[in-house]
Amino acid sequence: MIRKVLVANRGEIAVRVIRACREMGIETVAVYSEADREALHAKLADEAICIGPAALADSYLAMEKIISATVVSGADAIHPGYGLLSENSRFAELCEKCNIVFIGPPSGIISRLGNKQEARMTMKGAHVPVIPGSDSAVYDAEAGLEAAREAGYPVMIKAVLGGGGKGMRMAADEAEFEASFYVAQTEAKNAFGDTAMYVEHYLTRPRHIEVQILADSHGNVIHLGERDCSIQRNHQKMIEEAPCGALSEKLRREMGETAVRAAKAAGYVGAGTIEFLLERDGRFYFMEMNTRIQVEHPVTEWITGIDLIKEQIRIAAGAKLSYTQEEVKIAGHSIEVRINAEKPEEGFRPCPGTVTGLHLPAGKGVRVDSAIYSGYAIPPFYDSMIGKISVWAKSRKEAIRKIQSALGEMIIEGVDTNIDYQYSILNHPEFLAGNVDIGFLENMQR
Amino acid sequence: MIRKVLVANRGEIAVRVIRACREMGIETVAVYSEADREALHAKLADEAICIGPAALADSYLAMEKIISATVVSGADAIHPGYGLLSENSRFAELCEKCNIVFIGPPSGIISRLGNKQEARMTMKGAHVPVIPGSDSAVYDAEAGLEAAREAGYPVMIKAVLGGGGKGMRMAADEAEFEASFYVAQTEAKNAFGDTAMYVEHYLTRPRHIEVQILADSHGNVIHLGERDCSIQRNHQKMIEEAPCGALSEKLRREMGETAVRAAKAAGYVGAGTIEFLLERDGRFYFMEMNTRIQVEHPVTEWITGIDLIKEQIRIAAGAKLSYTQEEVKIAGHSIEVRINAEKPEEGFRPCPGTVTGLHLPAGKGVRVDSAIYSGYAIPPFYDSMIGKISVWAKSRKEAIRKIQSALGEMIIEGVDTNIDYQYSILNHPEFLAGNVDIGFLENMQR
Repeated sequence: MIRKVLVANRGEIAVRVIRACREMGIETVAVYSEADREALHAKLADEAICIGPAALADSYLAMEKIISATVVSGADAIHPGYGLLSENSRFAELCEKCNIVFIGPPSGIISRLGNKQEARMTMKGAHVPVIPGSDSAVYDAEAGLEAAREAGYPVMIKAVLGGGGKGMRMAADEAEFEASFYVAQTEAKNAFGDTAMYVEHYLTRPRHIEVQILADSHGNVIHLGERDCSIQRNHQKMIEEAPCGALSEKLRREMGETAVRAAKAAGYVGAGTIEFLLERDGRFYFMEMNTRIQVEHPVTEWITGIDLIKEQIRIAAGAKLSYTQEEVKIAGHSIEVRINAEKPEEGFRPCPGTVTGLHLPAGKGVRVDSAIYSGYAIPPFYDSMIGKISVWAKSRKEAIRKIQSALGEMIIEGVDTNIDYQYSILNHPEFLAGNVDIGFLENMQR
Repeated sequence: MIRKVLVANRGEIAVRVIRACREMGIETVAVYSEADREALHAKLADEAICIGPAALADSYLAMEKIISATVVSGADAIHPGYGLLSENSRFAELCEKCNIVFIGPPSGIISRLGNKQEARMTMKGAHVPVIPGSDSAVYDAEAGLEAAREAGYPVMIKAVLGGGGKGMRMAADEAEFEASFYVAQTEAKNAFGDTAMYVEHYLTRPRHIEVQILADSHGNVIHLGERDCSIQRNHQKMIEEAPCGALSEKLRREMGETAVRAAKAAGYVGAGTIEFLLERDGRFYFMEMNTRIQVEHPVTEWITGIDLIKEQIRIAAGAKLSYTQEEVKIAGHSIEVRINAEKPEEGFRPCPGTVTGLHLPAGKGVRVDSAIYSGYAIPPFYDSMIGKISVWAKSRKEAIRKIQSALGEMIIEGVDTNIDYQYSILNHPEFLAGNVDIGFLENMQR
């Protein structure tokens, strides 16, 4: 049993985890930086410990401080949320060594799936379709060119240890390849201290479809359906929905079963997400596996009724899954919109500031996950996402109307937000028709 | 089709209806009293019309003013919410005469079901069990005594036109009867200008179980399961939940089918509720039928996913029900708590005032229906209920934990509320065990 959880995060996900723990009768410890003294997560937890100055490296990413806070407070587990230390295998390992339950998969699995090349090989071994490309790392343009010829142009050149869009370049043809390769490799060296690259076929405007899975430590793995996260800006998801209207029941089952196979092949334990790229012809390819809870987990919770955070905690405590695959029923449609404190008209420049007035939407089928309140000063040091609005309705059409209505009602004074921008996406004829792919936003802005 | 709805109500239910309309693409008109200039419902609607001073009789109950506002604004329908004019057959009739769609049953049905004696005879005719008692009105103690003997002591003496607990007295035996009868009759005469009384057997601590039904104008009637509303103070519901843990599947089906039969017998159209009293041995008796949306409708929406307000509007527009009985699936458990601005320790004295600080609970499975905001001055003229918190979880146990957690997180500054009192009910061992009946609160306070 887990009695006391330290939440190694901030913002809405920290609040989300604290609420789940409270409902499970588990005590909570928040950690906060000096800039987060007035943060909601620090107020809501049973205990709150200041772990250092605002800078991430000195507080939320300072592993030893977080371990110390855990030991001092007598917590027996850490929930890492998303981002920050959630996919850091060294941190998970540190927890293991200190006899602290890390609410997530074992460090070895995080490390294996975090290495893109290794993850790719694991998936190939489990007959999970991967994007045509190089099976081993390449270190120079010559080897890269050969791989590119096999993969087929256009190709994407990626750093093996890549992430966040860094160390990544497209090449439309052979003529472009060499220059792109060295630009990407230089970036990779600077960002990750590593020159290992790989080359993949570049898919033209696929959908981003991801499958949520849950795996316990007894070998049970289930999937909870897919999420369509194609609405992205610079690889950053903006709007997510479930289910995806473009999937037939057959394809949905196939992708779900593939995700379960992928998780089993990786020896996975915990809540995880298999990200796929889906082409118009129904072919889909493994992209990566995220070994943490996702920002967009509420849409899956809406359509299945299953509480993913509680399941994460139960799994970490050694319990069996609460549901069999047959018990997972998907009903209705859910959409989530991320609310950022930013100015879309000025290149999405982050706009921290003080919330002077606040009216959040509410009512049937409307869920708000946020950590702001009236009078709250949003610190300038962290991610600009300040909340998420998600809705559920019987159909996609009704869900769109509901989230439009919810955004229309929302008032945040004192801070610029992307609410109007999100509203314009939700009103776009192509979005309404369900014609979305990962190039949607780029195309819309043209 | 309905294009524009005037909402003839205030507070959270007006907000609820406005949101439903907005999601359906229907324009909204709010009406408000001078005391409600800053009310949320007036701010959220597309248009808002002041209909008079604070006193109910001069504004929210002033039928002609509301009809005028409807005509002036070009609305084609009126949603009456609950309370106020919602069960006033004269108002429904006035709408019919003015060619305005009244979102509720036809006036004739409201009138027939509003007369307790007539409703009782309708139900008896449809083989719906009614409480043993007099089939016709009695006007003196002698006739009453005879009816009481047939019904069996203890008995309840009630005014035929009664309501709100007025004109009602219990008599434990023959010795008590005559005095109780005349006290009740005098009260009835003063309150309703009518001396018609009836006598019923008095049930000892039954549960209050009500069944939600939906009926369209094409003869289709379905039920949406039951709500247990046994937690009452002076006949005022405080906490409601669905489903009721005391019902077997067999009994649930039987009560549902009985409710459908009752609605059909009454020629019912719209959303309605059949209230039953359920004894420990599984026998249940018709109490009354409410011909409007109920305060506690969210718990049914949680367990079925069905939007009752939207169905009301669709039915009023002449559409067929969106669901067949087979399509109604009940899942999980929901609990609702009414939040009142009152001082429980001072006899539940209403405590209007200005909300100086507000933090509402949120997150997975938590729904807030309220019309308050930070800075809002609750006017002293109206009902003390300022909001409702409802939750959904997989099991009753988890739902109780969730609503405890939600109430624990809630902060309303500047105004006294019953939050702590409600919390104490939710923590009571008998409530936790599901051992509730309509005498629960009285018993708890002893």
